[in-house]
Amino acid sequence: MSLLIVGTVAFDAVETPHGKVDRMLGGAATYAAVAASYFTPVRIVSVVGDDFSPREHAIFRGRPIDVSGIERVNGRTFFWSGRYSQDMNDRVTLDTQLNVLADFDPKLPHHFRDSRFVFLANIQPSLQFQVLQQLETKPKLVALDTMNYWIEGALAELQAVLRCVHVLLINDSEARQLSGHYNLVEAAARIRKMGPKAVVIKRGEHGATLFAGKTTFSAPAMPLKLVRDPTGAGDSFAGGFMGSLTASGTVSDASLRRAMVYGSVMGSFAVEHFGLSRLRRLTKRQIGARARQFRHLTHFEL
Amino acid sequence: MSLLIVGTVAFDAVETPHGKVDRMLGGAATYAAVAASYFTPVRIVSVVGDDFSPREHAIFRGRPIDVSGIERVNGRTFFWSGRYSQDMNDRVTLDTQLNVLADFDPKLPHHFRDSRFVFLANIQPSLQFQVLQQLETKPKLVALDTMNYWIEGALAELQAVLRCVHVLLINDSEARQLSGHYNLVEAAARIRKMGPKAVVIKRGEHGATLFAGKTTFSAPAMPLKLVRDPTGAGDSFAGGFMGSLTASGTVSDASLRRAMVYGSVMGSFAVEHFGLSRLRRLTKRQIGARARQFRHLTHFEL
Repeated sequence: MSLLIVGTVAFDAVETPHGKVDRMLGGAATYAAVAASYFTPVRIVSVVGDDFSPREHAIFRGRPIDVSGIERVNGRTFFWSGRYSQDMNDRVTLDTQLNVLADFDPKLPHHFRDSRFVFLANIQPSLQFQVLQQLETKPKLVALDTMNYWIEGALAELQAVLRCVHVLLINDSEARQLSGHYNLVEAAARIRKMGPKAVVIKRGEHGATLFAGKTTFSAPAMPLKLVRDPTGAGDSFAGGFMGSLTASGTVSDASLRRAMVYGSVMGSFAVEHFGLSRLRRLTKRQIGARARQFRHLTHFEL
Repeated sequence: MSLLIVGTVAFDAVETPHGKVDRMLGGAATYAAVAASYFTPVRIVSVVGDDFSPREHAIFRGRPIDVSGIERVNGRTFFWSGRYSQDMNDRVTLDTQLNVLADFDPKLPHHFRDSRFVFLANIQPSLQFQVLQQLETKPKLVALDTMNYWIEGALAELQAVLRCVHVLLINDSEARQLSGHYNLVEAAARIRKMGPKAVVIKRGEHGATLFAGKTTFSAPAMPLKLVRDPTGAGDSFAGGFMGSLTASGTVSDASLRRAMVYGSVMGSFAVEHFGLSRLRRLTKRQIGARARQFRHLTHFEL
């Protein structure tokens, strides 16, 4: 089974207490696709400019990632620049240059239109909606990520697409903003009335919680000795989460819990080094070993 | 096996977004003793003033709590007043009146001196040390709680007592302050060089993490629909943690993990209502049911 991922491919400039990188490959779809590709074949839909060289394209090569949905147009690739606070729990955006993303009109290649598992990474909600319209078979599971920018500036569009998705992945502050409720149990309940049957609330260094059906499942974050760069942690989580679900082919209480753990595993790897440098060099064996570490981290007998 | 608890019995005035109470029973030893008493017999050492009436004393009656170590002296009982922020993650102290605590000189009744499990709740480190000196048999497990006030104002005393304890229970910001390191894995490692073989880092609504031997264990906090008053949550955690360990009689990887869960269970009950009002009305059945909820909250199969 293939996972369809739609979102940004970008260049990032990032500064954290552990270093500074002026230009590195990034973008929500890139992180999610690389993370998911360890679990399942991926189909990616995005747009890049003519500054996106074969050197950058190499990130997708040698992996089961079908890049025929990456459109290449004249102009420059989407660029984001940010700086993290000393404790890395906050960040300020220093610069955003939409560039080729400004006119992005996602078109699904014909052979992508039977995708049954879909991840709509963080991007303008109307584009997320447009992608869903192009599917020719009813998807089994659609998950969506979004951010405060769209909650503030494109709420009606966001609400429209939310009615068509099964899982919303969102961070805690955005869940509060979207629901208008501080308590996260209440926030998740309200969001689930907007469409998604399941809500995954990402809490950064504190882990993630799934609300689905009668299930509440909490995955802690892996305690790490060194976090160099939190960029892409949430997208890598989403990639591991959706990759694991797509590979299992079923959506059940057990497969959702397992997906939460593999999401946490991929997020924990992503933050160990700048950009995609850790994520791109993983082996399935390392992923399995860290998943077992998660089990050791949480296992108890009453 | 009995658990010896030394710490404050107090009156609190508390304001949270869910209400305001001008005078209610509180104190670290009170919360810890009531929480622990559901698991094991408790011996409490503290001091109260002559304003501590039989009505307040009732909190200890009908429970396996030996109160012969609660000294009653002329004057007023320790008083603390605080206000919580809207999100209840921060609080300001409005008033602290040491009263009878100012001259507290803890004396262990003779029949307390064989205690093998000891919890030194948050109080002046020199008093914690003094209590340890009075033990006549070598304790099996000594746990200690402290706060920023002592880290800032009585560091040498704190370091002296830390050399004699097995487990330090501490919140995340205090762990950072004590160790001088932001990263919690690093902070725990540095603290373990100060004496305690195990460190439990309490992260409020985000759960708690144990670092002991080669084990790292994370317990999430139970997602609750309504948190009315966080006062005493950490002390209730400590009571459940030490109560469970004392009842098991052994200190092992399995018993420490189980203790973390029962600590989380008792903390989760404590915050549901103001002061001790939820904690004092529990049944063993309710405690068992919530522990199973924790298992449901964290269980997964790879």
